[in-house]
Amino acid sequence: MSLELVIGDKTYSSWSLRGALALELAGVPYSERLIHLNRADTRAQILQHSPNGKVPLLKTEEGPIWDSLAIGEYLAERFPEAHLWPRGQYARAIARAVCAEMHSGFVALRSHLPMDLKRDQALEPLPAEVQVDIQRICALWAECRRAFGQDGPYLFGHVSLADAFYAPVACRLRCYRVALPAEAAAYVETIYQWPAFQRWLKAAQEER
Amino acid sequence: MSLELVIGDKTYSSWSLRGALALELAGVPYSERLIHLNRADTRAQILQHSPNGKVPLLKTEEGPIWDSLAIGEYLAERFPEAHLWPRGQYARAIARAVCAEMHSGFVALRSHLPMDLKRDQALEPLPAEVQVDIQRICALWAECRRAFGQDGPYLFGHVSLADAFYAPVACRLRCYRVALPAEAAAYVETIYQWPAFQRWLKAAQEER
Repeated sequence: MSLELVIGDKTYSSWSLRGALALELAGVPYSERLIHLNRADTRAQILQHSPNGKVPLLKTEEGPIWDSLAIGEYLAERFPEAHLWPRGQYARAIARAVCAEMHSGFVALRSHLPMDLKRDQALEPLPAEVQVDIQRICALWAECRRAFGQDGPYLFGHVSLADAFYAPVACRLRCYRVALPAEAAAYVETIYQWPAFQRWLKAAQEER
Repeated sequence: MSLELVIGDKTYSSWSLRGALALELAGVPYSERLIHLNRADTRAQILQHSPNGKVPLLKTEEGPIWDSLAIGEYLAERFPEAHLWPRGQYARAIARAVCAEMHSGFVALRSHLPMDLKRDQALEPLPAEVQVDIQRICALWAECRRAFGQDGPYLFGHVSLADAFYAPVACRLRCYRVALPAEAAAYVETIYQWPAFQRWLKAAQEER
């Protein structure tokens, strides 16, 4: 098996984090190739690997797969014993719905609070449209855990791609010191206690 | 079986079109509930059905599923004999990658050329960032058909969710009279010849 994940800086690249966590969930060995973002040659470097000029990209034996959601689905299919998605058909559908909602949405949160794992400072004032996004995210987390969480700390009982997709959101909420309802704060802490996430965070903190 | 698709106006709702085409690919009976967009009560109407306030939404026996991509995956899983995704694992990964690329991207195309199936008029001048999106889309269509199209008219040999996802793009290119390379123009025509799309288009043209 030969899998290589092409990523951006661990401090900043939220989509790369999703791809890496998906691989950690699959439990398979892989190598990493890190391309620094926001440099003069960043786009040229990425285009050497990725047809749409974005990270992450997974290099497989058959060819490259781009986009974190497609990477997650590929790994879920290829390593079914790892159960990257929840086991029930409807739970799986909702897990995909919340990942898709993240994938295409929460634009205000993403643009005003870009992931920066070295940050520890509030953004004041928090724009109203960001507050709307955060309210929806807190509602979504609460609903997933209520309906599918089986009294565990994760969104769908066992740790899944849904947690991988919301891990960078948890980072933003913590790094920008956003005040949260207790339940949402507990979920952020769950992400921060996830060993695969902790490894990424440590590497990010060691980045220059 | 009881499936209901909540959609917006057929003239304008590109994501609803994707959901409807996914159901057509599955070949299963379903009912439609149309909520008019851009009205004072639109959001309240949608929120009665959809937790994130967006269409399309699929109502199933187990509960609602929102987001066109999650709906597509659900139908692909539930009706495997319909082969909503290509059959090869790598082809399927790339089909998902191009759907995901559409799902989160092509923002310039989507904002400057919103779907309007009653329109038949160029947008001049075509903004440069829209041209970049269109170039990438044409390259992506050509590459999918070259690598996976098996000399057929669709992106992945047989008609699939990838075609459902790019059908509204084909509409935009035609309704805004965008000049295209021959191969891309042929693919737009393929979408316009797809009977399931033709039914939607006819209904759109009959909308007030």
